[in-house]
Amino acid sequence: MLPSRQKHTPSCQSISYINTSPLTVLSASKSYIHSYTPSTVTVYLDTRNNVSSAGHGNPAIADAVHQQMLLQNSNSRYLHSSFNELKEQIAARLGGADDDGRGPWKIILTNAGSESNDVALRIARAHLQHKRSCKTFTTYTYSMSYHGHSTSCLSVSPYKLRKLGHHDSSLYCPPDTQVVWLPTPCPSSTPSPSTAFDAAYTPSPSTLMFECGMSVAGVVLPPASYLSSAVSKIRSDGGLAIYDEVQSCCYRTGEFTCFQTMGYPSPDIVTLGKPLGNGFPLSACCVRADVLESFENEGLEYFNTFGGNAAACAAGLATLSELDRLRPVSDTTGALLLGLLRDLHNKHPRMICDVRGRGMFLGVEFLNVRAPSDPSPEGTLELSFVASRLKDFHHVLTTIDGAKDSVMVIKPPLCFSPQDAAYFADCLDKAITECLRDVDENGAMGVLGCGATST
Amino acid sequence: MLPSRQKHTPSCQSISYINTSPLTVLSASKSYIHSYTPSTVTVYLDTRNNVSSAGHGNPAIADAVHQQMLLQNSNSRYLHSSFNELKEQIAARLGGADDDGRGPWKIILTNAGSESNDVALRIARAHLQHKRSCKTFTTYTYSMSYHGHSTSCLSVSPYKLRKLGHHDSSLYCPPDTQVVWLPTPCPSSTPSPSTAFDAAYTPSPSTLMFECGMSVAGVVLPPASYLSSAVSKIRSDGGLAIYDEVQSCCYRTGEFTCFQTMGYPSPDIVTLGKPLGNGFPLSACCVRADVLESFENEGLEYFNTFGGNAAACAAGLATLSELDRLRPVSDTTGALLLGLLRDLHNKHPRMICDVRGRGMFLGVEFLNVRAPSDPSPEGTLELSFVASRLKDFHHVLTTIDGAKDSVMVIKPPLCFSPQDAAYFADCLDKAITECLRDVDENGAMGVLGCGATST
Repeated sequence: MLPSRQKHTPSCQSISYINTSPLTVLSASKSYIHSYTPSTVTVYLDTRNNVSSAGHGNPAIADAVHQQMLLQNSNSRYLHSSFNELKEQIAARLGGADDDGRGPWKIILTNAGSESNDVALRIARAHLQHKRSCKTFTTYTYSMSYHGHSTSCLSVSPYKLRKLGHHDSSLYCPPDTQVVWLPTPCPSSTPSPSTAFDAAYTPSPSTLMFECGMSVAGVVLPPASYLSSAVSKIRSDGGLAIYDEVQSCCYRTGEFTCFQTMGYPSPDIVTLGKPLGNGFPLSACCVRADVLESFENEGLEYFNTFGGNAAACAAGLATLSELDRLRPVSDTTGALLLGLLRDLHNKHPRMICDVRGRGMFLGVEFLNVRAPSDPSPEGTLELSFVASRLKDFHHVLTTIDGAKDSVMVIKPPLCFSPQDAAYFADCLDKAITECLRDVDENGAMGVLGCGATST
Repeated sequence: MLPSRQKHTPSCQSISYINTSPLTVLSASKSYIHSYTPSTVTVYLDTRNNVSSAGHGNPAIADAVHQQMLLQNSNSRYLHSSFNELKEQIAARLGGADDDGRGPWKIILTNAGSESNDVALRIARAHLQHKRSCKTFTTYTYSMSYHGHSTSCLSVSPYKLRKLGHHDSSLYCPPDTQVVWLPTPCPSSTPSPSTAFDAAYTPSPSTLMFECGMSVAGVVLPPASYLSSAVSKIRSDGGLAIYDEVQSCCYRTGEFTCFQTMGYPSPDIVTLGKPLGNGFPLSACCVRADVLESFENEGLEYFNTFGGNAAACAAGLATLSELDRLRPVSDTTGALLLGLLRDLHNKHPRMICDVRGRGMFLGVEFLNVRAPSDPSPEGTLELSFVASRLKDFHHVLTTIDGAKDSVMVIKPPLCFSPQDAAYFADCLDKAITECLRDVDENGAMGVLGCGATST
């Protein structure tokens, strides 16, 4: 399979677990992924699924898309009821539109989070240019945040730009992008995140681009007071706040969006994405009507060929219906799993320095247990060893993220069962114990500590 | 339906035929769109379908997507065979990769043409920056060309930027975008297009961004000699050529791509889009391996959440299989339709100044028959009248495009039958005759000449 892939696929398109053995996924169901070799099928528990949130192979969603594709799949220039109904349902879940005089949420349906964030940035710039007479368009973004793969999204994605190495990031990053430092709570947490925005901010109309539920940063969820203060400063100077909820929407953290879970101020623009169509390409850019005005007045039609076509709307409606049903899981199984992970933190304080997150969006930060030969505190190699053990011996798939690749990010489908949670925590306990034993008995980790690529 | 749409949909998202009566499309089949009112269903012949090229409601494609969504819909970080197979099939159809020492086509699957053009521009810039040590990145684009709705695509889309009116286009258009003038053959065709590129070009490594089969420009297909000359100049100075075949791919003009139909030189990068998944969001950016090198070396992973997921690949494979079957239609029904339209040109030389195009991508350019009160030669109002008559009296949907909205662009699904072609030509004849009679008898066109928005 690999040579056939490599023939026409650029090497910059990563393969998960390339360092051990990549998975050939031919079927999947609920929280399980089935990987095939010519002679065996192995079932893996999937703790890293932030797209098929309503479960792999969800038949209700597959059927809804099928029925719609058989009927018709016209674009947004024709009228069809699911286009309106999906927006109505999203707006109702976002709340707060009817009682504050700013008009209803206006929603642009697109194919992907990158497209939604791109148009969100265009809308913000139009607002700053025409309403605030700005000539420059400072965008505040956060260290380790990621907003998508398009040119404009990369320009506000320090997570990606830091990887340019010796290459010139100015090709992507315009001079008016200001990066605000936002550390993870451990192992190093100074300076206090509460002062980082103030340090970076120059009062003038500008855009705050904030990834709610920062995922690749390693499950970073600042407190409500932090966002309240930053958004209030931005607004009092005539700027606006964009929340990127592409990863964190659709009950991932408990409420429909992370900003609702965390009690952050309601944004001017919010983008939704990955889980919105359970894998069918669908995303939404939701804008308060008063902020959209300048963009409307520019005179450019916004047409997106597939965005909001009938099949995409059918996928979105079926997904929301499934996720409404699964929503309690985010609280109940999420709380159960968080409790189990905290038990592991208590049991293995040498290895785990923090367990954090909300709902089904959890992070476990690993420490270096091999010191003092390697003076860095992060458990990058430890997590790599543990993730490889989890995959190869326990058949559990996990995600490695964070600035130093030392945070296990857990975002299973919302159909994750209490049994799945207990099994996962048990396997994690075993893998950590094995890792510690290897270090204590042999002074080093086994050959599996070669780095599981599980971005 | 309209008030419910307007509640959450920005007004910059156009509705077709908003000036007469928009269509509520609840079903569609092959070349026909069914529009519903509370009491009636009207069947319209669709001559404007550049997405569901294998026909509306195509069951083979709907079934393939359904089966795949039931099985699994994993992303490109896992291995699955249809991901490789789709690329193999695209590469085989693009040809020319094995015999010129440049290595195979490398293909990035995305959700939409805008995403493919965005990454194409990133790849070109990386090549110019790292291979050619460029500090500036001049991109030559054509008047009236359109490459997508994202920020970077708009920067090379004069078709859109001209509509910014009094607003500042510098927000979108960087100073190193150079617009090459490319006129339609009539009614005004000076200066000769063959000299336009030379006039705009400054020798230095740069990118030629060329929309093959320019659609919104009004079916503009320059001769092979023009492209050969431009591409050869670009290449001899170390630059490269991107062809945007998002509209024109998949046998629209006869061969798989328009550059193959027209005999243009094979490009360094070519993007495919709209018809590739028959409405399922799917697009491809295809790059010669030698040109991709610098992009690969930048060190940024390219990951697209939905791009090339299993359902998208299933849609692509099923669509290619259906279109292979329909391919002869592009030649046979296309030739039949072109002949019928030329007959109309001969019959109505006052109204039609040109009939052009290849395969199932045809254009009819209209003249002003109301002169001398309106001195402009373009038949903008005439075409608006004709398109409205076609829709409301003959139930035929058409597209209005071109710099002055005076070109009827005809791009029906490839399942368009000879009977469909004959019916359409007959109705067009009637509508033109009605328009001429109105002008001759009343000195003006009837109330229907109020502008059918049929972009």
